[in-house]
Amino acid sequence: MKPLIVLITDWTYKEGAIMSMKGVMKTIDPTLDITDGTHEIPQYDIWSASYRLHQSMRFWPKGTIFITVVDPGVGTPRKGVAALTRDGYVIICPDNGTLTHIAKDQGIAEVRQLHAHLRLPSTKGTSIFHGRDIFGYVGAKVASGELTFAQLGETFDKNDIVSLPDLTLGNENDLIFGQLEIDDPNFGNVWSNIPIQWLYDAGYTLEDDIRVTIRHKDDVVFDQVLPLRSSFGSVAIGSPVAYVNELMVVAFAICQGSFAKTYQIRYGIDWKVEIKR
Amino acid sequence: MKPLIVLITDWTYKEGAIMSMKGVMKTIDPTLDITDGTHEIPQYDIWSASYRLHQSMRFWPKGTIFITVVDPGVGTPRKGVAALTRDGYVIICPDNGTLTHIAKDQGIAEVRQLHAHLRLPSTKGTSIFHGRDIFGYVGAKVASGELTFAQLGETFDKNDIVSLPDLTLGNENDLIFGQLEIDDPNFGNVWSNIPIQWLYDAGYTLEDDIRVTIRHKDDVVFDQVLPLRSSFGSVAIGSPVAYVNELMVVAFAICQGSFAKTYQIRYGIDWKVEIKR
Amino acid sequence: MKPLIVLITDWTYKEGAIMSMKGVMKTIDPTLDITDGTHEIPQYDIWSASYRLHQSMRFWPKGTIFITVVDPGVGTPRKGVAALTRDGYVIICPDNGTLTHIAKDQGIAEVRQLHAHLRLPSTKGTSIFHGRDIFGYVGAKVASGELTFAQLGETFDKNDIVSLPDLTLGNENDLIFGQLEIDDPNFGNVWSNIPIQWLYDAGYTLEDDIRVTIRHKDDVVFDQVLPLRSSFGSVAIGSPVAYVNELMVVAFAICQGSFAKTYQIRYGIDWKVEIKR
Repeated sequence: MKPLIVLITDWTYKEGAIMSMKGVMKTIDPTLDITDGTHEIPQYDIWSASYRLHQSMRFWPKGTIFITVVDPGVGTPRKGVAALTRDGYVIICPDNGTLTHIAKDQGIAEVRQLHAHLRLPSTKGTSIFHGRDIFGYVGAKVASGELTFAQLGETFDKNDIVSLPDLTLGNENDLIFGQLEIDDPNFGNVWSNIPIQWLYDAGYTLEDDIRVTIRHKDDVVFDQVLPLRSSFGSVAIGSPVAYVNELMVVAFAICQGSFAKTYQIRYGIDWKVEIKR
Repeated sequence: MKPLIVLITDWTYKEGAIMSMKGVMKTIDPTLDITDGTHEIPQYDIWSASYRLHQSMRFWPKGTIFITVVDPGVGTPRKGVAALTRDGYVIICPDNGTLTHIAKDQGIAEVRQLHAHLRLPSTKGTSIFHGRDIFGYVGAKVASGELTFAQLGETFDKNDIVSLPDLTLGNENDLIFGQLEIDDPNFGNVWSNIPIQWLYDAGYTLEDDIRVTIRHKDDVVFDQVLPLRSSFGSVAIGSPVAYVNELMVVAFAICQGSFAKTYQIRYGIDWKVEIKR
Repeated sequence: MKPLIVLITDWTYKEGAIMSMKGVMKTIDPTLDITDGTHEIPQYDIWSASYRLHQSMRFWPKGTIFITVVDPGVGTPRKGVAALTRDGYVIICPDNGTLTHIAKDQGIAEVRQLHAHLRLPSTKGTSIFHGRDIFGYVGAKVASGELTFAQLGETFDKNDIVSLPDLTLGNENDLIFGQLEIDDPNFGNVWSNIPIQWLYDAGYTLEDDIRVTIRHKDDVVFDQVLPLRSSFGSVAIGSPVAYVNELMVVAFAICQGSFAKTYQIRYGIDWKVEIKR
């Protein structure tokens, strides 16, 4: 069985880009099994692309090839790379921070800079669609068996992979602190980077209340006592709640509402969260 | 040939949820053929999920497995179920009203409450993603042949399936009355539950005009004489029309416009429609 | 290997239409490989549908079947057709202008009007869903091998295919003029119909500046000197740029911004562009 392919981009389906990319891949091998991971990464949001790999890659069969193209620097000197993770997944992407989470959590076994000659031959005059002309093309060649991982390019030092800045995460006395790492843009939940296990270790249960303080830079934008529960469905419709999300970190929701919109809360390096009794 | 799988959710592709769910399924069996039915059911709108099954299931091969997850009550005591329809389809979903239309129209042959032990083993500490951890997991096990329908759980009385309230539909003297059952959120059409055959039986033809009165609760929000035609394309651009929709019920549109937006009309138990000469 | 199928519509995934259409096709042959080209063509925008075929079809294997349904005239007397291109692709669509670009660029070898009897038998009473009842049905029959192209209907004169009006494109003295042919509704780029080769032939390089004038009808809506570069990433974030797009025509962008929104520029027959030094 050939490796499965998963695509992650910020292109949306509003024009023909994905159709073109899949055509290139199916021309190389019409039997390839290509899944849309998502094409709705927020525009240019490399952090989100990196997070979605972290969130979902582990659930796929080992050997699956993830082609991840959130690439505002396309056509500039940033590298195109192929990474092999310690647990055997392949990621083909621009080297722009897309590998941040996976490098830290799963670990990269080997990374290669894609050979310049590996591109769809008919597209030499254009520089702005590496998803179609390089990443998709290369991914299909690997999945079909035409190219091995080792043939994709020269290896380079894993420490030279471009990485986005680390988030804060810690535990001091009675205070557990971390950051808002990502949102669910559909339901309006916000996910922290604090493992629920840290709260269990500190003696909290899913029947307790917790004091949650959220800061944007130095401004407190949320400071409330919230029920800590197993599900957003455990509180009344319209009520805020802290809950255990699908990756076993502490997350914040409003039951059938949007925590992010209601409290004007986003995510990333500028957003800090503290939990105490 | 293994059964096909169709997914219906309200998750959208804005984050990694569908990617995770499909990964679980493809890890169980990478040869599964999984189709996105839709992931854009309006949030928490179980009625719409139920309707989309009614609208589309009949066009799929018998034996197809529909995994339908519009599940605001995830992590609360509502049941997870697998239903076998009289005509041989399988639906795996929360028991929250999702089976309303199918139970009434196609009929349920057998319904089983999913065994608690049937879930992705690595996800035991989280309660909020049954699409990934239970429904997708179970659906893939059935499609792959690892589990039979009978192995999914104990049967329970079909009459105990959670059902959303019935709509009104009737015919008195010269008045045909029913409800606005659903919309087409893309083109802005609104579909009633009145079979076009009732109008034919009452002597109407697709060259007649009809008097259409739409009420929200007790307020009349629309009261006009409309041409009854075979297509929204049968009237001038911008004009309202009653037409025969794809399921042979009476529907309302504006040619290349939005009936729903123009007249501020929605659907469901509070929306009634009357047709007379 | 059976031909691949690609779908292009303006239906979105907001309701069950695509699910119904794919069900019809998978019932005819569950082994068919059906790819979503896009379902987000702007509503009723036949020009965009035609352009997306032009943009992406060439990247697919010869023999691929494109079912393209942007069909505001469904249920009216417009023809349903199947076209075979000179290079061996099949397009099944309403004859409403969808074939404009392909007829001009790739060329049509043969076009047939679909036989009236070729439709999903159970749907005879409805006229508004030819995507499900005719185009999808016929496309699946051809892909599965049940019907040959020649069996789809009688041929008619290629010159009778409905075509949308031609765009202007020319070169006089030092002035290169053309039109804004399409946008990228996601990133907000706008693409002209002017081949970059014309600029190279006139002595321009990707390090030059060019004077770009854009008119809507007779009004000048944009008149600036822009850098001509290989990528939108070649200028500072927020800056406008002319660049070589994926189809080797001159396009306009704002780096990580929306050229279309910022300057209120759209595309089509009313939009003209001039380039000079």
